Amino acid sequence: VQAATLPAVGHVEVREVPDPSLAEDEDAIVRVTKSAICGSDLHVYHGHFGEFAPTYPIGHEYVGVVEAVGGRVGDLHAGMRVAGSFFAACGVCGFCRRGRFSLCRDVKVFGFGPRFGELPGTQAEYVRVPKAAVNLLPLPDEVSDVQGLFLGDALTTAAFGVRRAEVAPGMNVAVVGLGPVGLLAVMVALAAGAARVLAFDLVPERLRQAEALGAVPVLADAAAVKAARSLLGEQGVDAVVEAVGRRESLHLAFQLAGGFATVASLGVFVEPEIPLFLARGFAKGTTLRVGMANIQAEWQWVRDLVAVGRLHPERLVSHTLPLSAASEGYRLFAERQATKVVLEVG
Amino acid sequence: VQAATLPAVGHVEVREVPDPSLAEDEDAIVRVTKSAICGSDLHVYHGHFGEFAPTYPIGHEYVGVVEAVGGRVGDLHAGMRVAGSFFAACGVCGFCRRGRFSLCRDVKVFGFGPRFGELPGTQAEYVRVPKAAVNLLPLPDEVSDVQGLFLGDALTTAAFGVRRAEVAPGMNVAVVGLGPVGLLAVMVALAAGAARVLAFDLVPERLRQAEALGAVPVLADAAAVKAARSLLGEQGVDAVVEAVGRRESLHLAFQLAGGFATVASLGVFVEPEIPLFLARGFAKGTTLRVGMANIQAEWQWVRDLVAVGRLHPERLVSHTLPLSAASEGYRLFAERQATKVVLEVG
Amino acid sequence: VQAATLPAVGHVEVREVPDPSLAEDEDAIVRVTKSAICGSDLHVYHGHFGEFAPTYPIGHEYVGVVEAVGGRVGDLHAGMRVAGSFFAACGVCGFCRRGRFSLCRDVKVFGFGPRFGELPGTQAEYVRVPKAAVNLLPLPDEVSDVQGLFLGDALTTAAFGVRRAEVAPGMNVAVVGLGPVGLLAVMVALAAGAARVLAFDLVPERLRQAEALGAVPVLADAAAVKAARSLLGEQGVDAVVEAVGRRESLHLAFQLAGGFATVASLGVFVEPEIPLFLARGFAKGTTLRVGMANIQAEWQWVRDLVAVGRLHPERLVSHTLPLSAASEGYRLFAERQATKVVLEVG
Amino acid sequence: VQAATLPAVGHVEVREVPDPSLAEDEDAIVRVTKSAICGSDLHVYHGHFGEFAPTYPIGHEYVGVVEAVGGRVGDLHAGMRVAGSFFAACGVCGFCRRGRFSLCRDVKVFGFGPRFGELPGTQAEYVRVPKAAVNLLPLPDEVSDVQGLFLGDALTTAAFGVRRAEVAPGMNVAVVGLGPVGLLAVMVALAAGAARVLAFDLVPERLRQAEALGAVPVLADAAAVKAARSLLGEQGVDAVVEAVGRRESLHLAFQLAGGFATVASLGVFVEPEIPLFLARGFAKGTTLRVGMANIQAEWQWVRDLVAVGRLHPERLVSHTLPLSAASEGYRLFAERQATKVVLEVG
Repeated sequence: VQAATLPAVGHVEVREVPDPSLAEDEDAIVRVTKSAICGSDLHVYHGHFGEFAPTYPIGHEYVGVVEAVGGRVGDLHAGMRVAGSFFAACGVCGFCRRGRFSLCRDVKVFGFGPRFGELPGTQAEYVRVPKAAVNLLPLPDEVSDVQGLFLGDALTTAAFGVRRAEVAPGMNVAVVGLGPVGLLAVMVALAAGAARVLAFDLVPERLRQAEALGAVPVLADAAAVKAARSLLGEQGVDAVVEAVGRRESLHLAFQLAGGFATVASLGVFVEPEIPLFLARGFAKGTTLRVGMANIQAEWQWVRDLVAVGRLHPERLVSHTLPLSAASEGYRLFAERQATKVVLEVG
Repeated sequence: VQAATLPAVGHVEVREVPDPSLAEDEDAIVRVTKSAICGSDLHVYHGHFGEFAPTYPIGHEYVGVVEAVGGRVGDLHAGMRVAGSFFAACGVCGFCRRGRFSLCRDVKVFGFGPRFGELPGTQAEYVRVPKAAVNLLPLPDEVSDVQGLFLGDALTTAAFGVRRAEVAPGMNVAVVGLGPVGLLAVMVALAAGAARVLAFDLVPERLRQAEALGAVPVLADAAAVKAARSLLGEQGVDAVVEAVGRRESLHLAFQLAGGFATVASLGVFVEPEIPLFLARGFAKGTTLRVGMANIQAEWQWVRDLVAVGRLHPERLVSHTLPLSAASEGYRLFAERQATKVVLEVG
Repeated sequence: VQAATLPAVGHVEVREVPDPSLAEDEDAIVRVTKSAICGSDLHVYHGHFGEFAPTYPIGHEYVGVVEAVGGRVGDLHAGMRVAGSFFAACGVCGFCRRGRFSLCRDVKVFGFGPRFGELPGTQAEYVRVPKAAVNLLPLPDEVSDVQGLFLGDALTTAAFGVRRAEVAPGMNVAVVGLGPVGLLAVMVALAAGAARVLAFDLVPERLRQAEALGAVPVLADAAAVKAARSLLGEQGVDAVVEAVGRRESLHLAFQLAGGFATVASLGVFVEPEIPLFLARGFAKGTTLRVGMANIQAEWQWVRDLVAVGRLHPERLVSHTLPLSAASEGYRLFAERQATKVVLEVG
Repeated sequence: VQAATLPAVGHVEVREVPDPSLAEDEDAIVRVTKSAICGSDLHVYHGHFGEFAPTYPIGHEYVGVVEAVGGRVGDLHAGMRVAGSFFAACGVCGFCRRGRFSLCRDVKVFGFGPRFGELPGTQAEYVRVPKAAVNLLPLPDEVSDVQGLFLGDALTTAAFGVRRAEVAPGMNVAVVGLGPVGLLAVMVALAAGAARVLAFDLVPERLRQAEALGAVPVLADAAAVKAARSLLGEQGVDAVVEAVGRRESLHLAFQLAGGFATVASLGVFVEPEIPLFLARGFAKGTTLRVGMANIQAEWQWVRDLVAVGRLHPERLVSHTLPLSAASEGYRLFAERQATKVVLEVG
């Protein structure tokens, strides 16, 4: 089968790789129809996760059709349209059994190489999915392929952040960082009943996108806190979704937080330590939540909102390319010329 | 001042009544601009709450402008546009101090006569509001008078029901009973992120209204449960707002409830006892919540959603009449010819 | 193997029944060391669930040692001491996957006969446990066999009720009905930080037992509500665990409930309809929860409290008999001469 | 009246100060019977909050008897025994009205000098209490004076931490830092149903005290995390109360936190910035909560637990001195020779 691989750091190449096959009773083989490039794929691209075997497929955002199943996959069957989680959970450890799939003792990430379980990636014609009953989500007709592509990572990560920030109807919410996850958090916060969503970034084009989605755009420069205050009064916001993971964005999030507000950070932190002004949080009773999205526990409700037309993640797609052009897709995304790149696979 | 009174059961008359005046430091006098007729005003109208003094003003839904204030009313001042709660809480008892205003030990309902604290009603040119800082809500320019009219009772009661039913984004919700409160519950459930709202009533016109608001209308006849099942599968709904308060509607609500679902009943029960099929609830782990809306604890977030254009309660107004035509307004509403009657006062 | 059977209504007989064997990969065979008689076993005894095959073992409360396992039972292995849930959940349906085992689409109850899945009961030397990884709980050394006997039903049902009633530290709690589950609810409520637990029953001996556990005993006669008020003031209790399931006990629970209190009913309702005074609940904002205990979602924390010596369910055991005396055990329990009967099996 | 004052940094002197008097209708004058020295009084003592007027009384933990009241103090009356909050909230701002007293826009701390509202302190024979209905808590006979002394700050701060850490029955809990608040958090966590409480400090005597209260003591040195793991397995603790507020203790708290655990920090941070290893928290989905205790929202349930004998804060008192020996009391406490110093006033 054809798949995007990473023969060298910063160099993506589509080539023939071994056919995946059913290795366990709980496995499914999925014929991938589309796979997208995620912000965290750039860590792979830039070599942060080490070097990969030359026929190891990369990528983890995907949608497809079940091609074959083992004997223990619950209601799944060949021919079903499915979205897949970006990570595979075992479904049976103590954490999984309590619905905490992101804490799974045997978690593996597709396409992230040996450090993350060496699970072959999804920018490929076919992919083997372990514990398929847990790690695949059936899609109804109302959800298109390109919408489903967002359910296994970006959109559900945003939704996880909105829930972790305890957004409730009528709240004023801030979203800090307007990459794909941040823009999706704007959508979800509004769908969840936020009164106003203030959207912060330094890039004017991203601010325009957030505004088009219904947010109030605010330039994230030194005057950002003042600007927020002039919009909302001194009360600050009730909830913050921080979608960057750097010290500057966390500081801004802390400053925006009003009394007893919650900051949910979705960032994958690259700095070993991040200094926080906790003394300020003391006066306001701030809560900070960090953590990887618990996809398999959240994606049903997100899918249901997509199915009824309340969420439109497909609006973020800026480029659609054939799998054979994966290299070009990575380049566009790495150079910030693309918001979201979709690879058409089959 | 002119006010609607009830000199005899079923007979509303607008006449001159004594001017209200500041009796306590915490009082405000509000110049009423609009007052609406509520479903529970029909209990007054039909004499369920006894006979009233001939110059006792009736009514409890209102919006207006602060005319005068005592020395202890917080930030309130003359000239402020305000909505008023349908009941007055003391603000200082143990319940009020914990934000449980509807449980206030000294609760009084406007216009409900001697059994409910003998507080003169709001279908009048002026009304005295005790504990004004607690019982009035300032309105920003973005909220119109007719919108504000819904904040002190009908809309916030619906919102209380939606919250008590624990509606969360992506849920399937049922609303049983499509009078004004039920229709408003449809609006609020959708604003709070419900995926689908199934709306049940026996009156085709009400079903049409619910559909226009975004709900899936379902005739509440003997086939209602089956119809719901064909729409949702066997899973049932996740939350039910019951807005009638009769045994038939509660039975329907219990049947619609899916696993671990919550039924929030907003009805003012007239039957002394209501038989429930608890055995069915046992298998499903049902939760039933009853209770009067805790208006003063909820109306801020509801107002904020109205202010940003996410809720449009004014869509329910079917008739607007001058105060002098209050008698006609009560007749139309009692005969179910009107969805919501607004009395223009000043 | 020897097992208690029900060859005729009201007639228990221990006889030789077929050996259980591993039928599925997820099965385990447990060598039962002790099995207890539960209140709901009396429904079986009195024939409410129909007639059973003469070699069908009855009973569902048990503790034992894993004798043999299939190939897919997670961390379980032969020789492990385990408690078993009174019902078997499938572990893979949509409800199980969300941790809602009591709603499992394929739920089966041990020893309840053909209407409940025809799973052979546990008052037997050996029992087959389907989906063993889900339906068995390993026991640490700190938990004795007789303590473990309570984890699969009575104690965890009580704990489920306490959690569903939203008992929080410092609350005043009522427990209505002081059979084994009610007495265990007294224990759990106190362990969870209840300030005072008022315990209601009509039987003086049960009231004495509740008092010995730390509760304030109150005779559940016509003066019960008045007595509670004199103890607590007018505020009422914050939470009620109702452990009977009859109209009288539910009425008492509703009357005891204070403002915004929650009543969690654990009763298995035998009456088809139960009339409730919802109008009273309206004024107080009462919540009523019914439902079968979600054992597999709760038993870990209950076990942990037993292990550290914070809960002592074994105090309830009034009679310990050999399995061969099962008939005598049922008779004592049916005639209310025993609080809890334990059958020593192996 | 006699009062402890701070004529110079590090120098406490009891002298005659002006009599307090009723300044507002909502005021009460309390005759102080006991006042304690709090860890945060050491900030005053060491001059961190600036210099104070020579007749300004210091101190903020107190219990006493109402001597006189203004016209608007609710149910308070002369002769009532009361505990007082360490800070005075206004009771009427938007935050207070929602029960968020610690966020009050007009918050003042007793005895903290001009930077905190210049409210005279409580280590004095009499103290004026503004908004007395909000800031005083009546004490029943079951609560002794010395117990009541802990309700307005130390014990309720500990209880706030336990609630903010979302401690639930059966959880394993860590308390980091065993000063008075940490030791009280051990008590509250156990009363709230924690299975095991691991208590961390570097001082052997404090570890012994924690053990006497029922905790498992763990030396907070470099091997602390390993020691915790050997006690609990790899799962870590479910909740952490951090009662120091320094980077070392926060780092330890983060390391101890298990999957989706919450760390509630009660520390008053003195360092401007604290670096956190958020990347580790990412893998575990950690929640961090900081903030000043919302005393007036929590103290009722804490008092109720003291009243029934479930909490015994008086066990922490190591020294009882007359007010005239306040200087000696501060010295003992500053030199860590005392756990808790009580000043007998009247």
